[in-house]
Amino acid sequence: MTDSPSFVRLPEVFSMHRGGELHQARIAYETWGRLSPRRDNALLLFTGLSPSAHAASNAGDPTPGWWEYMIGRGRPIDTDRHYVICVNSLGSCFGSTGPASEDPRTGERYGLDFPELAVEDIARAAHEVVGALGIERLDGVIGASLGGMSALAYSVLYAGGVERLAVLCSAPRAAPFAIAIRSLQREIIRSDPAWKGGRYAPDQQPLTGMRMARKLGLMSYRSADEWEQRFGRERVDAALPFREPFGVEFQVESYLDANARKFIGHFDANAYLYLSRAMDWFDLGEHGGSLEHALGRIGAERCLVVSVESDFLFPLHQQQELADLLRRAGRDVQFAVLPSIQGHDSFLVDKERFAAVVGEFFGDGTAQCGRGGQAATG
Amino acid sequence: MTDSPSFVRLPEVFSMHRGGELHQARIAYETWGRLSPRRDNALLLFTGLSPSAHAASNAGDPTPGWWEYMIGRGRPIDTDRHYVICVNSLGSCFGSTGPASEDPRTGERYGLDFPELAVEDIARAAHEVVGALGIERLDGVIGASLGGMSALAYSVLYAGGVERLAVLCSAPRAAPFAIAIRSLQREIIRSDPAWKGGRYAPDQQPLTGMRMARKLGLMSYRSADEWEQRFGRERVDAALPFREPFGVEFQVESYLDANARKFIGHFDANAYLYLSRAMDWFDLGEHGGSLEHALGRIGAERCLVVSVESDFLFPLHQQQELADLLRRAGRDVQFAVLPSIQGHDSFLVDKERFAAVVGEFFGDGTAQCGRGGQAATG
Repeated sequence: MTDSPSFVRLPEVFSMHRGGELHQARIAYETWGRLSPRRDNALLLFTGLSPSAHAASNAGDPTPGWWEYMIGRGRPIDTDRHYVICVNSLGSCFGSTGPASEDPRTGERYGLDFPELAVEDIARAAHEVVGALGIERLDGVIGASLGGMSALAYSVLYAGGVERLAVLCSAPRAAPFAIAIRSLQREIIRSDPAWKGGRYAPDQQPLTGMRMARKLGLMSYRSADEWEQRFGRERVDAALPFREPFGVEFQVESYLDANARKFIGHFDANAYLYLSRAMDWFDLGEHGGSLEHALGRIGAERCLVVSVESDFLFPLHQQQELADLLRRAGRDVQFAVLPSIQGHDSFLVDKERFAAVVGEFFGDGTAQCGRGGQAATG
Repeated sequence: MTDSPSFVRLPEVFSMHRGGELHQARIAYETWGRLSPRRDNALLLFTGLSPSAHAASNAGDPTPGWWEYMIGRGRPIDTDRHYVICVNSLGSCFGSTGPASEDPRTGERYGLDFPELAVEDIARAAHEVVGALGIERLDGVIGASLGGMSALAYSVLYAGGVERLAVLCSAPRAAPFAIAIRSLQREIIRSDPAWKGGRYAPDQQPLTGMRMARKLGLMSYRSADEWEQRFGRERVDAALPFREPFGVEFQVESYLDANARKFIGHFDANAYLYLSRAMDWFDLGEHGGSLEHALGRIGAERCLVVSVESDFLFPLHQQQELADLLRRAGRDVQFAVLPSIQGHDSFLVDKERFAAVVGEFFGDGTAQCGRGGQAATG
């Protein structure tokens, strides 16, 4: 039985990748399944920008998690076989230390005094959790989006500590179009007067800026084809109370508004800014001077790279490059290109296709969920 | 010689498509070339959301226009042969009546008291200009983006008055993904406290909101591939004065910021809101009950539809549908799919390809600019 989440204390002084340090920081994590006596069945799961460590229901928290269909007994990541660890990223706001946390040296919230956060810090902090659990070598590391970046960073930093690597809807470095989107999201948040230069009170978040930034996020996470099918030009019920000038009229606007409002109460604005910028900064090629060299360092012998055709935030050519370079480095690479129409978020919603490829990769060859028949594997 | 721009007064009371009316409104326009004695060589050009009627240099204004490469002596739209008229859209702010104009009945600026604006109103107001110039039948109507919507509306409303129709990077109705982008742009502007519910002073525009809305516009107008080639992960010169937290660091951010700042001084925020929403509302299928019926009404015998593969604001399948339906209605349709990488804005910057297809369509068969060899015409 676990409390939910559990915590691992980072070293008293945790030096950050780009300079600066954290004191008495901690990482929140959750687990599923049991660590084998030989401690060789652990999978480390990194999240995207916004989720907590609650990837699936467990004894400590029976509510459904953000990847519920993927993790559990008999599921693609089978907790009868694997011990799964999901960490809340360093810099986030669901139990791990981040800009909303108190700096023990001052007794004040960090805010913008939080040191610069890199994807490498997320990986290094997660490694402390792995070590605290007595695990020397992971059977696998997996992540989608920012989680995929974190998984790549982990696999380079701890090259000997990873058997298998799965990178979904992600990339070894941020591309300028994605940087542009995230930069504008940050500018929208910073331009909300309620942001107050980062010094808002915890219960007075810049909700307007966060709402609009989230809408832009949702646009970059889904696809035009999906919305054409789901919403077309349907209008909302005229009786709904959207009566301000230029307010919500189309179903697609209502969908964005409802989803954005669900999000904004639960995420700290400064944490969002830090994690978002960490993605922009990420360039695995900095480890060794080039992407080729960095990927050559990865110890994992088997790699899974999953791409979604309709993902324009992390477009196909980025995963193609990653798969090509891993193969050139001699790794055994499964590269799956999925025809999902839900864009970047497909890993959350196109359950059948993602269950098939992930289940096959981490399974023992007897997976029940199909053999990737819908995936164009190349 | 023309003054620049010229003006046509609309009827004393101009009834709007969705209700309401304008009094003593006017349309600003510019012209190039000479109207033939038989008045049969006129081309009407509609603009996208933001340009003025100054599409190219002329006697009244020798500065380069927004489509300079396209219009002039010996150019694809050859002013030795054609009399070209470009209108500033009704609702805009470059001489034509819009929300920033004074309502003669009150002596106050319209602001949000401006009646609801539809693309059909832009077309109907332009028709007043055509009539005032003594032209009964246009040799052609052409437009890109919102201009293409306006050209389609014009061709349905004045079915007998158009010989040739050219629609570039546009669509017969707005799709939900484009609606979502424009809706968020409007929300960003409206959320700027300086917008003041639409009652800002003329010289106190909501510049922050307009700047961010324009950045989002630029993202939707270009393409990820173009930015990968142009900017990659290049940083700006560290000496530049972008020192606020989370400020500009990558070249792509600097490009967006510079372009957005160029725009915001020159466009009225309320005009932007009205024109943007007019695009969302546009659905040619409302004329006759379906898109098939509406397009069947178009009198133009020859039609050009131009699509850009990398345009995700007006994606290929929308122009494909338009071309298919026009063909089914018996029109002679040239459908060009261009491999330009500059996205929606390609009509402004991929001069060679657009010059070729437009020059061929409006030329006399002896165009100097190539025969569309780079276009996949289907």
